Amino acid sequence: MTSYIAPTKDQQFLLQEVLKVSASDIPGYAELDPDFTAAVLGESGRLASEVMAPLNAVGDKEGCSLENGVVRTPTGFKKAFDQLKEGGWAGVDMPEQYGGQNMPAVMGSAVNEHFLAANQALSMYHGLTHGAASAILAHGTEAQKDTYLPNLVSCEWTGTMNLTEPHCGTDLGLMRTKAEVNKNGSFAVTGQKIFISSGEHDMAENIIHLVLAKIPGGPDGIKGVTLFIVPKFLVNEDGSLGVRNNLSCGAIEEKMGIHGNSTCVMNYDGATGYVLGETHKGMRAMFTMMNEARLGVGMQGLGQASIAYQNAVIYAKDRLQGRDVTGIKNPDGPADPLIVHPDIRRSLMDQKSFIEGARAFILWGSSLFDQSQRQGDTNADGLLSLLTPVVKGFLTDQGYAMTVQAQQVYGGHGYIEEWGMSQFTRDARIAMIYEGANGVQALDLVGRKLGQDGGKHAIAFFEIVKDFCKNNPELPEFVEPLKQASKDLQAAMMYFMQNGIKDPNNALAGSNDFMHMFGHVCLGLMWAQMAKAAQSALDNGTADTEFYETKLGTGRYYMARQLPATGLHLARITSGAKSVMELDASAF
Amino acid sequence: MTSYIAPTKDQQFLLQEVLKVSASDIPGYAELDPDFTAAVLGESGRLASEVMAPLNAVGDKEGCSLENGVVRTPTGFKKAFDQLKEGGWAGVDMPEQYGGQNMPAVMGSAVNEHFLAANQALSMYHGLTHGAASAILAHGTEAQKDTYLPNLVSCEWTGTMNLTEPHCGTDLGLMRTKAEVNKNGSFAVTGQKIFISSGEHDMAENIIHLVLAKIPGGPDGIKGVTLFIVPKFLVNEDGSLGVRNNLSCGAIEEKMGIHGNSTCVMNYDGATGYVLGETHKGMRAMFTMMNEARLGVGMQGLGQASIAYQNAVIYAKDRLQGRDVTGIKNPDGPADPLIVHPDIRRSLMDQKSFIEGARAFILWGSSLFDQSQRQGDTNADGLLSLLTPVVKGFLTDQGYAMTVQAQQVYGGHGYIEEWGMSQFTRDARIAMIYEGANGVQALDLVGRKLGQDGGKHAIAFFEIVKDFCKNNPELPEFVEPLKQASKDLQAAMMYFMQNGIKDPNNALAGSNDFMHMFGHVCLGLMWAQMAKAAQSALDNGTADTEFYETKLGTGRYYMARQLPATGLHLARITSGAKSVMELDASAF
Repeated sequence: MTSYIAPTKDQQFLLQEVLKVSASDIPGYAELDPDFTAAVLGESGRLASEVMAPLNAVGDKEGCSLENGVVRTPTGFKKAFDQLKEGGWAGVDMPEQYGGQNMPAVMGSAVNEHFLAANQALSMYHGLTHGAASAILAHGTEAQKDTYLPNLVSCEWTGTMNLTEPHCGTDLGLMRTKAEVNKNGSFAVTGQKIFISSGEHDMAENIIHLVLAKIPGGPDGIKGVTLFIVPKFLVNEDGSLGVRNNLSCGAIEEKMGIHGNSTCVMNYDGATGYVLGETHKGMRAMFTMMNEARLGVGMQGLGQASIAYQNAVIYAKDRLQGRDVTGIKNPDGPADPLIVHPDIRRSLMDQKSFIEGARAFILWGSSLFDQSQRQGDTNADGLLSLLTPVVKGFLTDQGYAMTVQAQQVYGGHGYIEEWGMSQFTRDARIAMIYEGANGVQALDLVGRKLGQDGGKHAIAFFEIVKDFCKNNPELPEFVEPLKQASKDLQAAMMYFMQNGIKDPNNALAGSNDFMHMFGHVCLGLMWAQMAKAAQSALDNGTADTEFYETKLGTGRYYMARQLPATGLHLARITSGAKSVMELDASAF
Repeated sequence: MTSYIAPTKDQQFLLQEVLKVSASDIPGYAELDPDFTAAVLGESGRLASEVMAPLNAVGDKEGCSLENGVVRTPTGFKKAFDQLKEGGWAGVDMPEQYGGQNMPAVMGSAVNEHFLAANQALSMYHGLTHGAASAILAHGTEAQKDTYLPNLVSCEWTGTMNLTEPHCGTDLGLMRTKAEVNKNGSFAVTGQKIFISSGEHDMAENIIHLVLAKIPGGPDGIKGVTLFIVPKFLVNEDGSLGVRNNLSCGAIEEKMGIHGNSTCVMNYDGATGYVLGETHKGMRAMFTMMNEARLGVGMQGLGQASIAYQNAVIYAKDRLQGRDVTGIKNPDGPADPLIVHPDIRRSLMDQKSFIEGARAFILWGSSLFDQSQRQGDTNADGLLSLLTPVVKGFLTDQGYAMTVQAQQVYGGHGYIEEWGMSQFTRDARIAMIYEGANGVQALDLVGRKLGQDGGKHAIAFFEIVKDFCKNNPELPEFVEPLKQASKDLQAAMMYFMQNGIKDPNNALAGSNDFMHMFGHVCLGLMWAQMAKAAQSALDNGTADTEFYETKLGTGRYYMARQLPATGLHLARITSGAKSVMELDASAF
């Protein structure tokens, strides 16, 4: 019952008028002229709308099944995955050397939004493959790259990441999976991994598992962890598939959502594995994949909010219920459409202003990635590192809240499965949990990223905000609230510095609030930048006044109704850790 | 995998030390001495924990099925329902004349929390029966009362409420179900009703449907609506069951949650119905049931948050992950329990402080109901009428948010169905929707209740807050934040008065925020009252210092970290309707 239209116009605005990609000196950006980006987004949008979105409910209803070690994906998933492969979509931003199209990450992200919104469960199969390819690209030997990358970039093979075990998720130092060296220098990997997305399925001829394990005799805890490439089928020297490796899917989980993606218990029984990167430095290699995955999961928050919003708008315009208190709007009908009612508007504006701000935020993050990767800009890399937990944590918390609001627009029809809104909520829920639960993101932000490199990336962020405000006094509706919110954020940081030394809990008890206020300031900055671009188009006599006026109006809503949340977060943070920590564990 | 322990100690504290029921002059309260209430709550708690809670996951997994017009409930539901009947639990607060135990509503509520927390889907069968009985008690003829009440009070028969049709939910004036008078004075009811909870099932020998319909020739819209008693089996003069009525269950819905409750499409094909109350005044009669149901749904928000919290606490104490940054707490184990981590504490404190505040709020509301019903106190009735949308809307929005937080404590284990946390979230989601979606509650609050009787009930509420603050200056940690929050709420009301006249959208665009800030002030007041009672017990040398110190600590958390939300809501409200309403519908 649901539908999806790719937000290409909004993406074009962001790419060409806000980020101004074709005028950028980042290598590869010059090719991103408006016609080119429109053509690419048009095609990926079509695939998302016409092929992937119609399978979303099918995947939810059928789920995956495991029989005799074989996992079957839902009807139509393989055919859609084949179309994705044929279009080369999985390798949009991968090097040409390995069969990719070598576009910047900013385009990879824009395309990925379409797929993740249209069908999150299906998109996870190639999303994780991309992550595995990135890890091998960054840390693999030339031989490993040649062996695995062409087939991962094309999605002939897929990839996974194996971290979690039954007794450990966040605390990977507790890991029990072990890897013992074989005579030929490879390793025998033994252990059980759980919650492995796309761990086993019927859509690709091989699956390349990246598995964290401990080599006996190595350092204790997280410092003794090594990352291994553990293929489902070993690969012969000529590139053909060799023997089946000693690994199997023991079970698939029943979950709240993303039923179309197989979440597997994976058993490794002396499976042959090859060290990726250096021994005992597995976390460094895994973090290449994990950081990418965290940005991708932030995109899932945006994606589900976006498709849910689109459908809520359709329903709000279609469903007749009650009358506009300021005067009948649909005199020929028995009632006015839901969208006339102020609280429905309030909800739709919450959603719309979040979605468009989040879209800008992720594309900005992707452009920082491009600066880092293509220009070797370590400042961009550091800033992205600071923003990664905000993208992941804030966008998935808020994305979920907005998806729930979209579901709410449907009333009772939102709760029954027939209309499809429940699935968006159930699917969106996972994004707050995997790739590091959002509490872990907040901890990473406050406990690690904020002070990284002497705090210079946080300072750089505030400089960006300050410069924008200084240079754009003609936009007071945007600049003034942004200044206030940024001031709140700085005050929170100051509180952490002054009080976290006495007791680190004074900082950590405020970590969730800090992540959220940071997210709001980022979206406030995005809205200010978008407002500037929109105002500029209007000043230059654009014919499409409706688009730009709408952009300004949506931005004003965010500044008036969402950004002031920073004040509440600050109040909570500065109330300190005492009320959070004073009770004995026995008192709960 | 989940468990439930009834919060009897906390309820005893509220009944005996905060509401001081046994010292109250409300008729029936004198009997509520501590031993009596402890005995009642002990028994209902036992039934909830030992019989109903273990069936919660069974109900979710099996759901209900419809075959040849017969709806089967999940394994064990009927047996548990029989135990509920045998214990007389459905009629706890019903008149003795009809087989009830005639306890005050405050006890009915306390008992009901146990059942709704332990198994919401199962409890809805008797919950709606209670509502139908209340409507017949208030609006039925003596003959109707004699015919239906004994069997409804005992739950030999169950009841339903039939309002929604496919094209209308909130806007009942659009209703198409019609009722034409028969020769014998009864009516023939024809039409389709949807989303009928407990509409058909195998747990009772008769089902008494209360159905809204229009008598042709009556007034248009909502003023032409009449409420009918439409039994599944007609009742003979001697009380025995007669012919099967012309009504049937056409389908049961697949839903996000509450799978154990049958949500039915009900078809009435000239079914025999009897007017309940007056013709064309059906909404008045239905509102007796609906107001009761709204308080019950608010209790569902509390109930799911409460059971989810209990299980989150167990997991947080059990799951070892990471180390306390201020010093190792579990040196003999491989890691410390989750509960040492500040953000886990923050989440548990959010939950705990909400749950205990909400519990106090609902019991206060129930005591207002008792004052109204047992003492004819119209002021109490008016105040409860004002608070009803707050109980329903705020407690279900927040209850859902807290259930999601409890699920989050489990990380990935919260997302898979095996652990049971997902069900709490899925079940809790409905409470924000049914009995009037929360946007409708906010509209009812701001558009109707606030100004009712010249605004005197709102004024009375502020007087209660003011008196408490004036009389308890020795509790500044509670009184000062409460004063500020109450000031914010009054400022919002003032804004509505000054700006709503120019444009009602200035009020309605802030309705959701107002409902939430009102809820926070109510919980702030509850916490202040609880703090006073706790402080008094400590001053009087109680032996159980841990309980009362914990109560004070939990209250301080609410005042420091939750109550300041009123400032954000006020900022949103006073930003006015412009940013909410300015976009054309086409711009979404």
